[in-house]
Amino acid sequence: MSKKGLLGQLIQSFCCLPGVGAKTAQRMVFYLLQRDRQGARRLAELLLLAIDNINHCPQCRTLTEDALCVICADPARDRGLVCIVENPADVWVVEQTAVFKGGYFVLHGRLSPLDGIGPDELGLDLLRQQLAAGQVKELILATNSTVEGEATAFFIGELARKHQVKATRIAHGVPMGGELEFTDSGTLSHAFNDRKVF
Amino acid sequence: MSKKGLLGQLIQSFCCLPGVGAKTAQRMVFYLLQRDRQGARRLAELLLLAIDNINHCPQCRTLTEDALCVICADPARDRGLVCIVENPADVWVVEQTAVFKGGYFVLHGRLSPLDGIGPDELGLDLLRQQLAAGQVKELILATNSTVEGEATAFFIGELARKHQVKATRIAHGVPMGGELEFTDSGTLSHAFNDRKVF
Repeated sequence: MSKKGLLGQLIQSFCCLPGVGAKTAQRMVFYLLQRDRQGARRLAELLLLAIDNINHCPQCRTLTEDALCVICADPARDRGLVCIVENPADVWVVEQTAVFKGGYFVLHGRLSPLDGIGPDELGLDLLRQQLAAGQVKELILATNSTVEGEATAFFIGELARKHQVKATRIAHGVPMGGELEFTDSGTLSHAFNDRKVF
Repeated sequence: MSKKGLLGQLIQSFCCLPGVGAKTAQRMVFYLLQRDRQGARRLAELLLLAIDNINHCPQCRTLTEDALCVICADPARDRGLVCIVENPADVWVVEQTAVFKGGYFVLHGRLSPLDGIGPDELGLDLLRQQLAAGQVKELILATNSTVEGEATAFFIGELARKHQVKATRIAHGVPMGGELEFTDSGTLSHAFNDRKVF
């Protein structure tokens, strides 16, 4: 059977999904066409709708279909408190804790000079404007705890200092419910250095 | 952030893919919207096209966008030799070996009375008609080597016998390049029972 037909093209197009290779793509396509054409149609239609309508929020840069995202549009949220995250997915994770009632600023990446990702790509100009406007009282740096994430946090921390805005970093240590035995040494040494009076 | 927006609906719609849960769906959606909108558009458009145009071949029941699938339409293929497989994906796998030059018959499942899958659901009426037409000389039973697959092979073998058509089963045994040490006992005992003069 030729791989050039519609079926072959469709399978190839599924390979653009993260973590999906030729075999998985084939399995997905056959499953959809044989078992769930209704679900497949819904997926395709929603995807087209999303591509055309979902853009970055002009204030926090997260993905949204509205002119201003739900969080930025909510008057109950404290815009004086801004949490810096790397990805829109991180916003969802923090929102699920329901403990944070401020706003966000999504970088869509982290500083990575080798990949050509500098301050401009992360929208730090927009952040600078927001800091200069004087409404922000505290930046919570919640970038990932990787080398690039830490460097990004440091860079933004400097930016905050220039604008006399307080910058804090979320705590890193042993996860809740985690056992010492299974904690890696990097995390553990960090937890010892950041110990608090009990 | 509300899960009810377009983004939430899109993520939920990705959960219809086999092996994709909420977390993976979220990752896929964010990846597509942030990194590969062009690939996402292509995927969605091809999927809609496939849903509307891909149907079962009236002769072998595999998935095809044409009136007759590529294999059935090929005059060079021997229609006297018919390979019975469970899924369209199996056709692809056999085609990749390039060793088989006959036709196929796709069951789209296997006999499974508990799931309400009987001979009618597998299109065995169509197969009976093809056997009665007298063109088929040999049925190669390539259903999977599971309990249901074997039962299905047995059932179709009986059907072939009724129409005086030769039925053969593909060989089962130790895979090529496989080591005895890592072969399961079921396969190994089958390999011993089916041993050939060397």
